[in-house]
Amino acid sequence: MQLARVIGDVVVTRKDENLVGLKLLVLQPIGADGAAAGRTLVAVDAAGAGVGETVFFVRGKEASFPFYPTEVPADAGVVGIVDHWDVETEYRRT
Amino acid sequence: MQLARVIGDVVVTRKDENLVGLKLLVLQPIGADGAAAGRTLVAVDAAGAGVGETVFFVRGKEASFPFYPTEVPADAGVVGIVDHWDVETEYRRT
Amino acid sequence: MQLARVIGDVVVTRKDENLVGLKLLVLQPIGADGAAAGRTLVAVDAAGAGVGETVFFVRGKEASFPFYPTEVPADAGVVGIVDHWDVETEYRRT
Amino acid sequence: MQLARVIGDVVVTRKDENLVGLKLLVLQPIGADGAAAGRTLVAVDAAGAGVGETVFFVRGKEASFPFYPTEVPADAGVVGIVDHWDVETEYRRT
Amino acid sequence: MQLARVIGDVVVTRKDENLVGLKLLVLQPIGADGAAAGRTLVAVDAAGAGVGETVFFVRGKEASFPFYPTEVPADAGVVGIVDHWDVETEYRRT
Repeated sequence: MQLARVIGDVVVTRKDENLVGLKLLVLQPIGADGAAAGRTLVAVDAAGAGVGETVFFVRGKEASFPFYPTEVPADAGVVGIVDHWDVETEYRRT
Repeated sequence: MQLARVIGDVVVTRKDENLVGLKLLVLQPIGADGAAAGRTLVAVDAAGAGVGETVFFVRGKEASFPFYPTEVPADAGVVGIVDHWDVETEYRRT
Repeated sequence: MQLARVIGDVVVTRKDENLVGLKLLVLQPIGADGAAAGRTLVAVDAAGAGVGETVFFVRGKEASFPFYPTEVPADAGVVGIVDHWDVETEYRRT
Repeated sequence: MQLARVIGDVVVTRKDENLVGLKLLVLQPIGADGAAAGRTLVAVDAAGAGVGETVFFVRGKEASFPFYPTEVPADAGVVGIVDHWDVETEYRRT
Repeated sequence: MQLARVIGDVVVTRKDENLVGLKLLVLQPIGADGAAAGRTLVAVDAAGAGVGETVFFVRGKEASFPFYPTEVPADAGVVGIVDHWDVETEYRRT
């Protein structure tokens, strides 16, 4: 999984029926130092997250587990909202 | 998932039988700022998308979910056509 | 999926029994402009492809679908031979 | 799999129910020479690992195997704690 | 799949029970020209490979196929030992 900041959402009218009713979030992945790390992506929300929150997300088929037995065609999903994280001093954000 | 622009299509005569009848689109992934981000790829179309449209696509086995129970040997699929997306100011396209 | 050029093949005597009899091709992925894009890789052939041909291949477990029910331990497979592809002018190869 | 150093942990209160009770570790992947290689990530712990230890982790759905039959929505998991590793001289850490 | 050179092995005492008895190899992926290409990784051995040999390996869940029905939590596995490979002149190693 990776940490990320929710930076937006996507409105999609014509879509696969198994995606109907799901919230699609735009994520900016971040590293252990809190800085942006890698490209933005779109993820389904399985944790009730909103813009501005720090979350952690999962990639791959696992992103659809929370919606089982619906076979959601998603490859990224927010599965938790981060309270805080701790890292060793040398990796700590400044 | 990622946002992308449909920039072309591919004609493939000799192919796996489970791909017959499917439309193969050439995609240019884009970031939250609307700029090209990453390499072009080929995806199966599960949303009725065409050249010039902004879509979002899924990678991995999930790309074959919309065609179930056919086991489509695809690792990328267009699953929705984007109306618009919103991001925080600092990430907004100019 | 990605477009690729078949640039060689691999001879492997000692291998997993579910790979016996399969042709292993060396691929150079190419972008929508026809130029090399990314590292060479080895893929199983499910389309009767040969050196010099332009193909498209799939990554992941999907690469083993054409050989079902044999559980081929492959993560990349050629699933079609490309006749041609069309892209918008700005992406066209020169 | 990859080698990694455990550099921290993550506290997540609101999360998918199948993640409840699992320890979430922040990992810094390392190469065969012991140096940091690639971005930090978050992994579930299936080996009783702690901060400061050298571990090896698996990516993808395989990360959830140790928790079967619970369908843990995780794409990275620590599956072993490394005692030591040996590499040829040219790759040896200095 | 990718070609790789076996450059070492890893000793892991505390690990997932489904990994017990398996040999863990350190691999350096190589390209079609024989040069190192990408980061070192750890793979389970399903081909009886040893340090110094040129192998090809598979990524993803497919890495666990040779050990079926054991659900090995591995995302990379050596599935063949390479005798030789041939590529077009322009890609040939020198």
